[in-house]
Amino acid sequence: MILTVTLNAALDITYRVPALTPHASHRVTEVTERPGGKGLNVARVLAALGHDVTVTGFAGGDTGRTLRDHLAPEPRITDALAPVAGATRRTLAVVDAATGDTTQLNEPGPAVTPAEWTAFLGAYEELVHREGLAAVALCGSLPPGVPVGAYAQLIRAARAARVPVLLDTSGEPLRRGVAARPDIVKPNADELAELTGSHEPAQATRDARRRGAHAVVASLGADGLLAVTADGGWRARPPKRVRGNPTGAGDSAVAGLLSGLAERLPWPDRLARAVALSAATVVAPVAGEFDPSTYSDLLPRVAVTGQVTAA
Amino acid sequence: MILTVTLNAALDITYRVPALTPHASHRVTEVTERPGGKGLNVARVLAALGHDVTVTGFAGGDTGRTLRDHLAPEPRITDALAPVAGATRRTLAVVDAATGDTTQLNEPGPAVTPAEWTAFLGAYEELVHREGLAAVALCGSLPPGVPVGAYAQLIRAARAARVPVLLDTSGEPLRRGVAARPDIVKPNADELAELTGSHEPAQATRDARRRGAHAVVASLGADGLLAVTADGGWRARPPKRVRGNPTGAGDSAVAGLLSGLAERLPWPDRLARAVALSAATVVAPVAGEFDPSTYSDLLPRVAVTGQVTAA
Repeated sequence: MILTVTLNAALDITYRVPALTPHASHRVTEVTERPGGKGLNVARVLAALGHDVTVTGFAGGDTGRTLRDHLAPEPRITDALAPVAGATRRTLAVVDAATGDTTQLNEPGPAVTPAEWTAFLGAYEELVHREGLAAVALCGSLPPGVPVGAYAQLIRAARAARVPVLLDTSGEPLRRGVAARPDIVKPNADELAELTGSHEPAQATRDARRRGAHAVVASLGADGLLAVTADGGWRARPPKRVRGNPTGAGDSAVAGLLSGLAERLPWPDRLARAVALSAATVVAPVAGEFDPSTYSDLLPRVAVTGQVTAA
Repeated sequence: MILTVTLNAALDITYRVPALTPHASHRVTEVTERPGGKGLNVARVLAALGHDVTVTGFAGGDTGRTLRDHLAPEPRITDALAPVAGATRRTLAVVDAATGDTTQLNEPGPAVTPAEWTAFLGAYEELVHREGLAAVALCGSLPPGVPVGAYAQLIRAARAARVPVLLDTSGEPLRRGVAARPDIVKPNADELAELTGSHEPAQATRDARRRGAHAVVASLGADGLLAVTADGGWRARPPKRVRGNPTGAGDSAVAGLLSGLAERLPWPDRLARAVALSAATVVAPVAGEFDPSTYSDLLPRVAVTGQVTAA
């Protein structure tokens, strides 16, 4: 079983409109809704790969209820979201049918009280000590009210329970989290540069590792992944450039890394899986889903090469 | 007591963003929610004027629950919304903080089943026979699944119960509704032109009356109202042009007409109230609310002049 944590879960809403014109009135022709927030996206991909996943974080209000109603029928996903008095945020993607372009509007999320945070910590402690837990993923932004060192606390609790923990966030929560020595961090190029001050990926990845992460897997967009670990360094590249919507590609990469970790695959196989899933997500017609046939087509063709890691 | 019917009620959501840029990602800085749909807007203004109002129509899903939660604490408003399996639609106003302009995105509304429509008709029949009911207002668009002749049915039921009925809608539902002989219709210039084929308001208003409405009150935007009734014709103009957001100005005019009807005011007084409320809504800082001091300032200064109605 894998646990994913989404402190700022969201109800993802997609509106299709014939053409988006600022300051005009639009009739929405199609409305779709699904559970969102990085940890819930990761959970959906893990479940599609055949893993049992428990999801936690916060859910509240009528939007939280809608989110949980959507989760309930999902196979292999167990809902362990903690209640919060505020309402779960909505994230709205407005898709312009004429161009296919998307305009994104993200609500900030509910204010979490100190009592709600303390109650969550108790429930999380219990979850990380569950028998058979193979890994924990801590994903996404923090809602208002959650302390900026939240991920550091959650990392220490997972490590105390001897469960490998992956962190995928940005800014100050990433900086504090890395110092708590997570097993894996998966920043993208911008997050890595913000953390280390270096725009040179190889150097920045090594620097992030020196700051405390046991392994750093940097996602370089269409160029694949760069990993620096205790077992060595690798570069994993997709066999070809793919075109499409990159929304959710990073979450699919996290799911690839976690599933490979849970299955005790060696690093090169984990990275190949992450790159193939990521590319299969970019080409999928629905944002954040992955295309299974693209995934199986690309997986054996991802090029993984060893890197000298003069750390 | 006044009854307002909102068959396609909505959860009105307003997002404030620093600046709306198509195809970019935006952090929403402020989220507000309130019950929406024309009949609910009318009810809010009536309640502010001191009238007891019962609201009906459909509400369903988690959005319907949120809408009803917002209604519950409103003084003088009684919730008699009928349940529907589909979810109440959302309407989203994205306000660009830089320019103050609004981009509107309206969901289509839930599909109403024949059984739900029949159940609603039964509940409505009961409501229009309630003792002390002074007027009924039928407001807004029809959700998918409701027959296009719905308003004609509701008008006949109100007239059979000897309760005056006002209709405020557009397109084919307006055309069918007018033929059922409502006491008042309140089209705007576009709706009137669509109904009658004439862009000349005086002629179109008389024509709409010949089609079956006992009184026609046409709203001419910043130019006020033009009324043709069995008691005579009038033109009512605001004392000055006001600047602001016209959202909800038509609903405030309906509330003015209904409150005047319930209080048995003569037509010129009803029209003055409708024009003053409408202008006080345009200048209010919150869309759809009216500014009480502007209302009391303008009310005695609205110019109402008799018109020759050579109908």
